[in-house]
Amino acid sequence: MVFVQIREAKEGDCGHILRLIRELAEFEKLSDQVKIREEDLRADGFGENPFYHCLVAESLPGPGESQGPCVVGYGLYYFIYSTWKGRTVYLEDIYVKPEYQGQGIGSKIIKKVAEVALDKGCSQFRLSVLDWNKRAMDLYKALGAQDLTEAEGWHSFRFEGEVMRKLAGK
Amino acid sequence: MVFVQIREAKEGDCGHILRLIRELAEFEKLSDQVKIREEDLRADGFGENPFYHCLVAESLPGPGESQGPCVVGYGLYYFIYSTWKGRTVYLEDIYVKPEYQGQGIGSKIIKKVAEVALDKGCSQFRLSVLDWNKRAMDLYKALGAQDLTEAEGWHSFRFEGEVMRKLAGK
Repeated sequence: MVFVQIREAKEGDCGHILRLIRELAEFEKLSDQVKIREEDLRADGFGENPFYHCLVAESLPGPGESQGPCVVGYGLYYFIYSTWKGRTVYLEDIYVKPEYQGQGIGSKIIKKVAEVALDKGCSQFRLSVLDWNKRAMDLYKALGAQDLTEAEGWHSFRFEGEVMRKLAGK
Repeated sequence: MVFVQIREAKEGDCGHILRLIRELAEFEKLSDQVKIREEDLRADGFGENPFYHCLVAESLPGPGESQGPCVVGYGLYYFIYSTWKGRTVYLEDIYVKPEYQGQGIGSKIIKKVAEVALDKGCSQFRLSVLDWNKRAMDLYKALGAQDLTEAEGWHSFRFEGEVMRKLAGK
């Protein structure tokens, strides 16, 4: 039996987190989009006004095992704002390494994020998922989430790169 | 010819902004979801670590006109974080009163947000739109945005209320 604890990430975890970010993007078949570097994660998450917060799932060695603690999953979130309902938490990424899936670690991360959100006065907890990722969709629905794209028709749009610079006249 | 300027919102604009938030929600046929109060907007946008930032479009009176300046549109945004591309701006709401539409005020707000985003080191600018709001979709596409729900299959999910408290064990 492996014991896994959920704890706040420290700056020294950024290398592990980046490896998991890449694993998740590969699973999502969008790994060509990962441009972030470990130094960005360090600067943006651990300064005075962090752009994000992160939880890590860490497996702890059993008695007599030689291996040290190991980061096997993460949940990266930040606070957003709804003009209808105010303070809201947004879970950008949640991932557990395949060999640790099926043990409830993902649910533990989601529960911890819900706890942090309520402590911060948030009335909503949002996230996005790819439509073919049925396993994740089913988990979120089983936990009580509503699919707003299906129910209300919300589509996500993005400007980037040259287009953004052109908009800004730069 | 009405002259409209785009400027940063001040705390005293919150009453006007709330009226426009309600108009937008009515247009989106989701006005039953608006629970926010003016005091929330004041507390959450104008403290030390604001949860959001807001631009207002203000019409200025012509020479000899008796009416004062009037808030006729707004764009409310905040900073989010992509684990693929880092710092990102998110435009939560953009709205221009019907009688001021068609004059390029919405595009001016979008351009100003793009400018702020680049100044803050953001590489992406995101927003969401309802699938039946063809006029808005066409504008964003014409300005160079990509529909990620269509292209990649992203669905937006939400937990709230009792479900969130149950998740958090509260």
